[in-house]
This record gives sequence, C-alpha cells and structure tokens, in this order.
Amino acid sequence: MGDIPKKYKAVIYDEPGKVSTKVVELETPEPGPGEVLVNLSHSGVCHSDLGVMTNRWAGLPYPTQPGQVGGHEGVGKVVKLGPGTENSSVKVGDRVGIKWISAICDSCPACLAGHDGVCFNQKVSGYYTPGTFQQYVLGPASYVTPIPESLPSDAAAPMLCAGVTVYSALRKSSAKAGDWVAILGAGGGLGHLACQIASRGMGLRVIGIDAGNKKDIATECGAEVFIDHTQGKAEEEVKKATGGLGAQAVLVLTAANAAYASAMNLLKFGGTCVCVGLPEGELKAIATAYPQFLVAKAQTIRGVAVGDRREAIETLEFAERGVVKTHFTTAKMEELTGIFEKMDRGELVGRVVLDLNA
Amino acid sequence: MGDIPKKYKAVIYDEPGKVSTKVVELETPEPGPGEVLVNLSHSGVCHSDLGVMTNRWAGLPYPTQPGQVGGHEGVGKVVKLGPGTENSSVKVGDRVGIKWISAICDSCPACLAGHDGVCFNQKVSGYYTPGTFQQYVLGPASYVTPIPESLPSDAAAPMLCAGVTVYSALRKSSAKAGDWVAILGAGGGLGHLACQIASRGMGLRVIGIDAGNKKDIATECGAEVFIDHTQGKAEEEVKKATGGLGAQAVLVLTAANAAYASAMNLLKFGGTCVCVGLPEGELKAIATAYPQFLVAKAQTIRGVAVGDRREAIETLEFAERGVVKTHFTTAKMEELTGIFEKMDRGELVGRVVLDLNA
Amino acid sequence: MGDIPKKYKAVIYDEPGKVSTKVVELETPEPGPGEVLVNLSHSGVCHSDLGVMTNRWAGLPYPTQPGQVGGHEGVGKVVKLGPGTENSSVKVGDRVGIKWISAICDSCPACLAGHDGVCFNQKVSGYYTPGTFQQYVLGPASYVTPIPESLPSDAAAPMLCAGVTVYSALRKSSAKAGDWVAILGAGGGLGHLACQIASRGMGLRVIGIDAGNKKDIATECGAEVFIDHTQGKAEEEVKKATGGLGAQAVLVLTAANAAYASAMNLLKFGGTCVCVGLPEGELKAIATAYPQFLVAKAQTIRGVAVGDRREAIETLEFAERGVVKTHFTTAKMEELTGIFEKMDRGELVGRVVLDLNA
Amino acid sequence: MGDIPKKYKAVIYDEPGKVSTKVVELETPEPGPGEVLVNLSHSGVCHSDLGVMTNRWAGLPYPTQPGQVGGHEGVGKVVKLGPGTENSSVKVGDRVGIKWISAICDSCPACLAGHDGVCFNQKVSGYYTPGTFQQYVLGPASYVTPIPESLPSDAAAPMLCAGVTVYSALRKSSAKAGDWVAILGAGGGLGHLACQIASRGMGLRVIGIDAGNKKDIATECGAEVFIDHTQGKAEEEVKKATGGLGAQAVLVLTAANAAYASAMNLLKFGGTCVCVGLPEGELKAIATAYPQFLVAKAQTIRGVAVGDRREAIETLEFAERGVVKTHFTTAKMEELTGIFEKMDRGELVGRVVLDLNA
Repeated sequence: MGDIPKKYKAVIYDEPGKVSTKVVELETPEPGPGEVLVNLSHSGVCHSDLGVMTNRWAGLPYPTQPGQVGGHEGVGKVVKLGPGTENSSVKVGDRVGIKWISAICDSCPACLAGHDGVCFNQKVSGYYTPGTFQQYVLGPASYVTPIPESLPSDAAAPMLCAGVTVYSALRKSSAKAGDWVAILGAGGGLGHLACQIASRGMGLRVIGIDAGNKKDIATECGAEVFIDHTQGKAEEEVKKATGGLGAQAVLVLTAANAAYASAMNLLKFGGTCVCVGLPEGELKAIATAYPQFLVAKAQTIRGVAVGDRREAIETLEFAERGVVKTHFTTAKMEELTGIFEKMDRGELVGRVVLDLNA
Repeated sequence: MGDIPKKYKAVIYDEPGKVSTKVVELETPEPGPGEVLVNLSHSGVCHSDLGVMTNRWAGLPYPTQPGQVGGHEGVGKVVKLGPGTENSSVKVGDRVGIKWISAICDSCPACLAGHDGVCFNQKVSGYYTPGTFQQYVLGPASYVTPIPESLPSDAAAPMLCAGVTVYSALRKSSAKAGDWVAILGAGGGLGHLACQIASRGMGLRVIGIDAGNKKDIATECGAEVFIDHTQGKAEEEVKKATGGLGAQAVLVLTAANAAYASAMNLLKFGGTCVCVGLPEGELKAIATAYPQFLVAKAQTIRGVAVGDRREAIETLEFAERGVVKTHFTTAKMEELTGIFEKMDRGELVGRVVLDLNA
Repeated sequence: MGDIPKKYKAVIYDEPGKVSTKVVELETPEPGPGEVLVNLSHSGVCHSDLGVMTNRWAGLPYPTQPGQVGGHEGVGKVVKLGPGTENSSVKVGDRVGIKWISAICDSCPACLAGHDGVCFNQKVSGYYTPGTFQQYVLGPASYVTPIPESLPSDAAAPMLCAGVTVYSALRKSSAKAGDWVAILGAGGGLGHLACQIASRGMGLRVIGIDAGNKKDIATECGAEVFIDHTQGKAEEEVKKATGGLGAQAVLVLTAANAAYASAMNLLKFGGTCVCVGLPEGELKAIATAYPQFLVAKAQTIRGVAVGDRREAIETLEFAERGVVKTHFTTAKMEELTGIFEKMDRGELVGRVVLDLNA
Repeated sequence: MGDIPKKYKAVIYDEPGKVSTKVVELETPEPGPGEVLVNLSHSGVCHSDLGVMTNRWAGLPYPTQPGQVGGHEGVGKVVKLGPGTENSSVKVGDRVGIKWISAICDSCPACLAGHDGVCFNQKVSGYYTPGTFQQYVLGPASYVTPIPESLPSDAAAPMLCAGVTVYSALRKSSAKAGDWVAILGAGGGLGHLACQIASRGMGLRVIGIDAGNKKDIATECGAEVFIDHTQGKAEEEVKKATGGLGAQAVLVLTAANAAYASAMNLLKFGGTCVCVGLPEGELKAIATAYPQFLVAKAQTIRGVAVGDRREAIETLEFAERGVVKTHFTTAKMEELTGIFEKMDRGELVGRVVLDLNA
C-alpha cells in the first residue's frame, strides 16, 4: 500500500470546555512496535465524546487539552504493520475497529486477570490518545477488533461502544436463556441494543422499562413486555409479568439515581442488578442497597466496566448475523460541531456515524 | 426402640419479650408423613435465640408466643420414622442435626431453584416451630443433616448455624484458593469460624479485621494478617498486605452499618463484598454502594442467606476433620435463663451448648 | 373431588419380552405420605417403553414383570393429596407431569448434590413402578412437574422425556449464545427438539447432522447448516461453516458408535462433546477419546443423565412459549399394541400420544 | 545496565537424535519490539527436554535442528527493554521466568478465548526458539512471568513447567475444597507437586496412587491416603476411603494407557477425569470411555493443556508461601550431557536445576 498520504484530515476539539470542533490536517504517523496504522472510513459519535469535549464528565481525571482528536468507535482498514507484528493474526487489508479503550498494557494485575476494562495503564481513544474522528489512527495489533466480512463499516462502528457494553452487562447478569431481564432505559441508545441482543441473541425474555414514548422502539427491539415507568407501577407490573417473582436480572442503563433505587425492587430472589449507567453530579449510594434485603433475598449488585476484546468480537458477530442493528444517519466531518450542538440540546434522534471520506 | 417416653423435658419462653425461660414437661409427638422423631442430646445457644425470645429481632414478622420452645442448633439420634420415609437414606439410630430452617416445602420456585434459604414456606426452628431446647423434636427425613461418625454431638451443634453460614458466604465470595479474603468481625462468633474454614479448609489467605483485643483469637484461627479497625487504617493496611490491590473478597460478619461502609474500600478490582451481618434498627443503604465505583472497578455486592443442606453437610465434614473447631462450654437446661442474661449483658465468652440429658 | 372412581382403565405389558399389551381395569390407589393422586389425560409413547416391554434394553438391570403398567410421559390433574403434603405448593386441580424418574429419595449423596438423574434410590415410571399408560397414577408432591397454564396436555407429554433430556444436554454443553453446536441425529426424536431449543430458545447456532432425508425437518427446526453425514464430509463441512475452527459443542443424540467416533473431530479447541445416545450391544469406548488429542486441544467429553426437575420446568416454559413443538398424533389405549408394532418395524413417523379418556 | 556482554555461554544440542550437548559461546541478541532481554541465572532440566533433544517425543511435528538451545524453565533478571515496552509493567531489574510456551500471538481465536496453551502461533522454548540453557534469552514483556520477591530463582525454575501444569489441571478438575482427588503417579515429578498444591494450597483431600516405593514421598507431600497400584485393588481402596462413592476428580499424571483405563473406575458420579500425561507410541482411546457409563454416572473426561500465564503467577505465589516445594540439586552447564544420560537411564532422583553462572 504505497499510497498512504503524508497528511490527512482530522477533527479536533479546538476549545475544550465548549461545544466546538475544527477540521484540520495532520501528519500521518508511523506505527510503533506492535502497532498497526488504520485508514479509518467511519466513526460513530457518542454522548461520551460530548462529555470529554466539554469537560463535563466526572468519569475522567484531567481536563481535555486543545487539539485533542476525539472519537472512540472507529472502523477502517489496516494499511501498515509496525515492527514486531509479524506473528500477529492481523494483516494489511484487514478491516478492524478501535474501541473506547484503545490499548491495554497486557501486563498489569487487571490485564493478567482478564479485566481489560480496568487495565492500570489503559489508553482511552479520544482522550489523551488521538481518537477516531480522523482518517488515520494507530492501534495495537493485539487490541484492534477484527470486523466480520459481511458487516458494513458504518453499521459496525456504533457496536464497538454501546453494543459491547450492553452485551458484556447481559453476560455478567447471571440470567440464562428463558429468564426474564428488566431493562431500565430500554428505548435509549444503550437500551435499544440491549433489547435486541438479549431477546434475539441470547434467548432472554425482555421487560422494557422507559418513558411511554419509547414503547414502540423497545417493542420493535424485542421487549415482550413494556412498562411506562412514569406511571409509577413498575414493580407491580414486573411482578405481574413474571408470575409474582420479579426479574432474574435488572440492567440499569440510565444515569438516574432514581432508576438505581427502583431497580432492586424489580428483582427475583437470587437475582442480579447490573450497574451500567453513571449518574452525574455528587456520588450517591444506591438508595435501596440494604444488607438486610440483599441477605434475605440472596441478591447481587454488580458493576460492569466496558466489555473486553473477546466480547467486542462476539458483539460484532451478532451484528453480522442481523441479530442487532442500530438506527444511524451518516454525516461529514465538517458537520461535527452541529451534531454535538444538537446532541447537547437533546435533539438528536438515533445515532450519527461520520463518513470520514465524504 | 420401644423405650421412647411419653413425656420429656423442654425449655420454653414463658414470657416472650423478656429474658425468661422455664423448664416444662411436654408430650412426645408422633412423626408425621415424611418426618422423623429425633431424641436430642445437645443444642447450641445462639444470639438469634435471644432476639426471638425478646422480640427484638427485626428479621422476623410476628411476635413470639408464650410456650415457644426455642433453639436451632440441635443434635440427636433418630428414634422413630414417620410414614413415607421408607425410601429415605435416614434410618433409626442415625445421628442427625436440626438447623435454623428446620423444613422447606421443596416445591416452591425458590426450592426448585436450589435456594433453600429463601423457601417461600420455610419453617424456622425455635420460632413458630418447636425448636431444639428439648429432648425430642420432629424433622423431615430429607432435611435433617447427617452427623459424621467421629464428630461429637456437642461439637457438631454450633456448626449447624454459624459454621454453615460462614461456609456458604465463603463459597459465594468468588475467592479461590490463594486469594486474599478480608473478614470484618474476625474474632467474633461467626468470624472465628470463618477464619478457620477459609484458611485451613479452603486455601484462602485471611486478613482478620476486628477490635484489637480479638487479635489473638483471629490469629490462632488462621488470620495471616490482623488489622485493629479501631486504629482507622484498615484500607491502608489491607492494601499493604495485598500488594496494593485490595482483597478479592470481603465478608461483613458484623452488624455495624459502619463496617458495610468501609468494606467496599478494601476490595480489589473485580472483587466481591459479601453481606452476612444484619444491622439492627432503621434500614440504611450500604453507604459506599456507588454505581460509579462498582462500574469503574467491576465489583460485586452479594447477600448470602443461610446455607443450604448440602453446605451443612460439607461444613460438618470440615468439623469432623478438625479443620474448624469452636470453643464452647456445656450447661444444663435449667441454666438457660442465666445464660441468656449473660448474653444480653455481653458477658458471655465463647459458645454455650446445652447438654439435654444433664 | 368426590368423583374419583373405584376402578379405572390401564394398559399393561401382559407378556414382557414380546410386543404385547392389554387393557385392564385396576383399583384406584390411595396417595401415601407425601404423594398426590393424578388423573392422567395423556401419555406419550417413547422408544424406551418398547425397550422395557421387550426386555431388550441393556440399561435396566431386571426383566420386566407381567402386569407392568408402562409409560413415562404422563400429564393429568391432581385429584387427591396424600398426608404430609399440606406444606407443598401442589394443590388439588393443578395439572402436573410424570417423568422417566418418577421419584427420588432426596436424601442420598446424589440427591444432596443436585444429581436427580443418578439418585441411588430412584423409581422409574413404567418399570417396577406403575407408569403413565393408565388413567390414575401416584407421584410425590415434590417431584411431579407443574404444567404451564396455556400448554395443552397432549403437547406437554413428550416434552417430559425427550425435551428435558436435550435441554439438559445443551445446558451442560458449555456452549453459550452465539456459539456453534453440532447435533448428530438432528432430524430424530431427540434431535428435532434439540434443534428448536438450541436455536430458538438459547441463541445457539445449529449445525444439523443426519441422513439426507432429514434435511427438511432439521432445517425447519432451526438448523442453520445441514450436513448429510452419509456423504462422508462432515468434518470438512463443519470446519467450513465455523471459520475453520469446529463447533464449540457436539451433541451425540444417536446410538451409533460411529457417531461417537466422529464427534471429536468436529470440535473446536476447548470444546465439549456431550454424550446422550446409548449404543446397544457390547460396550465400546469412544474410538477417538485419545488423551493426546484431549490435552492438545483442551477438550472435554461429558455424559449427561436425564435432566433434573428444574430443567423439566424450564423445558415446559419453552414449550409454553412456542419455542419448541413436537409433531404428534393421538391414539387410544386400545391401539397401543399396534403402535409398538409399527415402532418396532421402524414405521412410526413422529410421536404418538395416548388420549387416556378416548 | 551498561555491562551486558557481547558474548555469553549457552548449551546447544549438537547432535539431535542423540544424547549430546555442547557448551558454546553465542552473541547477545537485541530485544525486538515488545521484547525484553533476560540475563538468566537458573534453568530447570525437564524430561521433555530429553524428548526434544532425542527427537523421540511424538508431541512435536518437526525434527530438532543442530545448534538448538534447549530448556524451558528459566529464571533471570530483565536487563534491557525492547522498543514498545514502555507501557508494560515489566521494568529493568525485575526477575522473570520463561515457560514452555515462550510467546503467544495474542490475536488468534485461541488467544482471544484465553486458551494460551493452544495458541495457533505459539513459540516453544527450547524447540525452534532458543531456550533457557543459556545466560541470555529474549521474551515478550507481556508473557514473561514475574517472580515473587522472596522466592529464590533456583526454587522458582521447576515451578514454571511441572508446577503450572498440575495447578492448571487441579483448577479444571471441578473438585472444590473438601473434595477427594485421586492422583495417579502421585510420587512422580508432576505428582509430588500436585499432592502439595492440592492438599496444602487448595484444601483438597488427596489419594495418592503410585508404586509402593513412592509411598513416603506422596505421603510427605500431603496424600492423606496412599494406594499401591501394583496390588491391583485401587478401585476398592478408593471406594473405601471415600465412603463408597469414589473421588470427585482423578488426575492422570502418568503416561501409561493402563492408568487411563483404570481412572474412570475411581470416579464418583458427576466426577471428572483430568488427562495430563501423554502416552507414547500408537494412539489408543481411553479404554473405559464408554458413553453408557459417562451418561449413567454424569461424568466428564477433560484434557488440560499447559497452564496460562495467570496460572503461572498463581503457582509461583504458592511456591513463595512455601505451600509447594520441589527437591532439586544444582549443576553446571558443562554437566548437562551427564544429567541427560542419567535421566535417560532412569537413574535421576529429583530435579536438576542448572546454575548458569557456575
């Protein structure tokens, strides 16, 4: 591939703290040891990117710097292999994906224990590591995610973040095929993927819980029962749907403390509440995490960090088979500021994927 | 066994709400279908019995009635089989134990799922079901626990409640051989058994945490590291002992809300906090059960109800092998009021086991 | 229910060793301790019944006796409760099912370990215990299987044996949602149910393997790929379908030693071969069970006994939801000899369910 | 560390096929991308090395080449970091170990599934990759094993192969603390380590099985019961020791087909036979791997490949704590031919560790 250009187009956060991006030209980097150079064609735009750009997101320790290239849902082709990648399975021409965690050290206690998501030396795409809002990016040969042949790149991009996260949460929920799982935020960005993977991919029975206007999307995505939580009868209705027992698992995909407080009441004895959504603002304990109830009902509360690389591959396999799809529109790099403005005003419907060659 | 007497000695709560017991004579019952009649020789005296007698214990829904025979750690010999027990493995002459849950329905959803401890129709020994402070008691052939041949009855009794509970908690803690487990309340009634089973029985490495005067007992029971929590440096010292990572599991065996709040800070990424001790008074959430931290560190909080019948058998096998021992003194039925008075004043050292033939 | 008749109709094996049955009148029994009396409306007719009747089946230790009432897939209504069942969840009027193992002792080491299928004191329906080819039968309150409300009794009957067996095998196969499972005998009595439960119920991807004339049924039942094993290219085709890796699990549902020999070659590294079908005649080891290969590929071979009572309930839930269906025709008790004759000549297509009131 | 010499001492197989080694001088290599250069101080000498040198070992596909540096149990200090290792946890001065599999690709399906031992692109130390019978060796930063601070290097070396293998086998045996495990070959190189880790490290109860002259070592290493298999009563005696039930797991650590045939008869219902030892010569199926028995007793046969890198770390932690020790003598590089000759004649008692600086 002798046609790698010297320079390429990228979008940076020019004034972190504000909603502002700028298209610039950058010099194409050389892949370092163990790395590959990827010519990206698409990148999803995620709500976390907005948080990183505006420094509003409590989950990150340092302020974002001007010039940061954002984005963490990128798909493209490997165009060059760095030194030391000869023994790897990744070859030039392979399509691969870049995830939220773009690299792990593979040698800290967390990595050795298989906990990618809590690697002590992790690099985060689009935050202190150049992200996927650009035409070329570097990634470790052993950590980029192979994209299945028949899955289009634009459809693959959003799976690398939201899709993987909910798949990981479902796997760790202890629910097995045939069990009921209640999904709080069933019609949202994470939720509509969770409904599909749970019901069509894993044989789980889904109770979708969200505001009433999300009923259609949740139902289309596989929710067998839908509950409008604004009616205040979620517990009663979950019990009714489950023969009086409650759900084997509850996934909290929203960021509301109230959702956490209610989640425990929806659970069956021996069930598991899976925490995914991160409430903003002051830290508050899950209001119903009473030792007495946890003991009496033999229940579990579990936090699930971002999925690992194997879960990423399995999520893409579900997507390739058509088990899970996301609704998205494509846009150009130049439109990114406008997209973030809409997102900030809560006006964005569905996902946006940047076509980086448009 | 033609020598079953018509009447026998029992101790009742004559004035529930007060610390008061009375030795009486009762008529020997006939075993019903599926039941066996057990001639008890020993019964442990547990702090929960005090709670039941005095109606102080929030865990039970109804006030205890006058005439209740208390006790839930009984050991004795089967002397008569009820109808329908022919196909059972239990025979006349077998030594068996009676536990906190004296009978399950074996047909509700919880039983079918293997969750004895949350059986919808469970009977509790010593609370609305005649307990083990008496010479004869009934129990289901399929739910009494066989006592290993070489384990003395008085030593077996306390294992049936405290021993089973901590063994069950350790099994559900996700810690595997070689992992560190921190035990809050390491020198107490539950804790000193947990230290022994964990270290000598299961290959776990134990960090005992308790007030400084419990150091000797915790250490003798197998705690490799002891931390005096009154010094306020538990988190720092757990990190030091575990190479900076924290413990794979924390067992909260005390009833203090403060213990629950501190427990999460002692955990390694991917670790599990096991709830066992039940705080009295108003319900309070675990103060550090923050979704943000659970997610960031991929941690779990789990409540463990009383162990199941298989765990009871395995606990007794540990006791038979000498892996776990409890310190106890024996007493007569007539001394029970005095024992409860001492217990109520916090003056009781070690366990008391009633010799029901003395 | 005052209308329980004194006598009722049953079918017995009048000349065990031969294919011969006879309709007789029997006296209605009283439920013993822990038992319920069930007024059966339907019973499936299974190939194992033929084996028991003719004494051809190597799996059973003693010859069948004249007068034996056969059958082990019965469904009916509880009409009377025996003594000691008051605390049970089963009530008069409930529809329940009788399985191959009609009763367990619930107190032997196998029962205590949750291994119903290997209970040391198990009773087998239709073999030394009166079976389900009759209008009334006894069963333990804690071991009859509740039938979901909307599932017809005739459709439920065959699930209690073949359905439970394959569901149990799939659960123990280590395959998780999205994994490939190869089913040897995919178009047979067990296989067509396995294909449905695996694909529609558990999110597994099914490779059906059988003789070419079974392609349609296997495909309709959910096999994504079908391989005609008579073409001799099963290994090659499984590899092709699975990206060169092999299947995560292989279920051997046929009774051919050759199927076992080939099964190991279809497996992925780390995969599991599940044994279900029982070859007749002389014992032969699985011809490809080489320690060298098992080690080099980290593979597992596992035998799965009949499913436990919880798996029976879960299988019926799948059936209730329409996830799994069986093709059956109904017949009268008087037709049973003719049915067995057809079965013996290999002419029976699909399942036969006796309508015991017809 | 400016004192890395240009040349260093190594032992090569000068005439593969024969028992012959030669001490030579080699040029110190530069660490490539992702690699570290290790100054080895010790290397264990393993029976597999003899097999590689003499080309007798069926497990390897190509003949060993003249000039091969053997060895796969090496310990030393990191003296130089290759490019791309900055983000790794391994630093100059760290003591690390080299294992049988010296490098994995970390990107093939087996690696992604956590199956190091079956990596499609694995490198084997001492076979087509320079091994540990030399003073300097290269290894991937992410695959060398950190050696615990207080564990001497000579004691650590043999743990990296035999120790890890048996620990991995015990973990995958399904036996839990308190269960019985029967170890075939209990007094051998693998077996005496398995006895120690099982009994002292994991809380398992060990039945050691071997020839009578191994009784002392097996017993000292923690076997609670010893059975001399030459007396032909192994099955009977295992049953006696286990209350008539059999062992929950059997580890076959010997290479005899006869041991595999007998192993299944020692197992409890629901138990697991773990294959580790590799019979030489023609492939033979496990003679008692009957589908009928596997099904009737719900048993499992499992092959366990070499342990993964996490298991290596955990094995060294057991060694650091003194849970497991191996008997070894040290020798010089020049003595290696003599050591192999003794090994070949079966005269070697205990393990030999080369002191590479002597």
